[in-house]
Amino acid sequence: MSDEPDEPIAQEIDEIEAFKRFFQRHSAGVAIVTATDPSGHPVGFTATSLASLSAVPPLLTFNMARTASSWAAIEATTHVAVHVLDVRNRALAARLAGPHDRRFDAADWAFDPTYGVPVFTGVPAVVIARVVERYPVHGNVVLVAHIEDGSLGEDGVGLLYRERRFFGPGDEV
Amino acid sequence: MSDEPDEPIAQEIDEIEAFKRFFQRHSAGVAIVTATDPSGHPVGFTATSLASLSAVPPLLTFNMARTASSWAAIEATTHVAVHVLDVRNRALAARLAGPHDRRFDAADWAFDPTYGVPVFTGVPAVVIARVVERYPVHGNVVLVAHIEDGSLGEDGVGLLYRERRFFGPGDEV
Repeated sequence: MSDEPDEPIAQEIDEIEAFKRFFQRHSAGVAIVTATDPSGHPVGFTATSLASLSAVPPLLTFNMARTASSWAAIEATTHVAVHVLDVRNRALAARLAGPHDRRFDAADWAFDPTYGVPVFTGVPAVVIARVVERYPVHGNVVLVAHIEDGSLGEDGVGLLYRERRFFGPGDEV
Repeated sequence: MSDEPDEPIAQEIDEIEAFKRFFQRHSAGVAIVTATDPSGHPVGFTATSLASLSAVPPLLTFNMARTASSWAAIEATTHVAVHVLDVRNRALAARLAGPHDRRFDAADWAFDPTYGVPVFTGVPAVVIARVVERYPVHGNVVLVAHIEDGSLGEDGVGLLYRERRFFGPGDEV
């Protein structure tokens, strides 16, 4: 899974390098977060920071940079849609990580009639969540959102990400 | 990857159920977080909420419940060790999610001589991070930690978790 040369065990590295090397060895599930900006346009991005915070109340967290094109909308919105992706959604994951003016250039989404947030079709699961906390940390924000509604699509095998590569799940261990 | 019956597309479900179903379809990389409690004992737990927050400064986040056996130590500590796991570490992941008085019952860890936190051997990557924020949200806490040091072990294939099962990575897509 890595094209790095072998590293001696316990090699000491500085803190920026430690961050980089550490997260190169971490795998993450891939999600898409969307919202609608104050002028009514959809925004969204591919996120690898989605995590569960608690089941009761049903809370999730995700992280983003305040330099992200979606931040102005995420800062102002009451609700977001959060989508879990499947390996069949690999092109969607790449699109939502590409040029921000092209991210909604396909007929695979619609505004939710109740919450007004853009929801992609063809994904395994979506929740609509109210943003309840936005914690600024340097140029970044940790967001907490309370799940209010959800829908399920066809289940599949989760899309995963590590070291700039997308992959599917392997064998149970 | 799922033993659920097929679900109709866009089935509406209530918010607790929405949370549960949504995270059943989310896959996560597996990490272990450790610290030393005020009386000098090691504590730690298996976490599926590890996420990157920013590279500069090098920040990570993870979530936990304040009812967790490790919380008193995590609340008081200045530093934590965060370990990325490999499929070879599957038993370690299960041990650190099991009875808390048995989690350090093996000779596969040592206190870091500089920071005093317990560090497991035989994992792909470890960082030692200073806890810089603890955000309480209901009975839970979102933690932000600044990576100060790190070391690399032998690389391998990341350990993943979904729906109470551990698995390895599959093919690139």
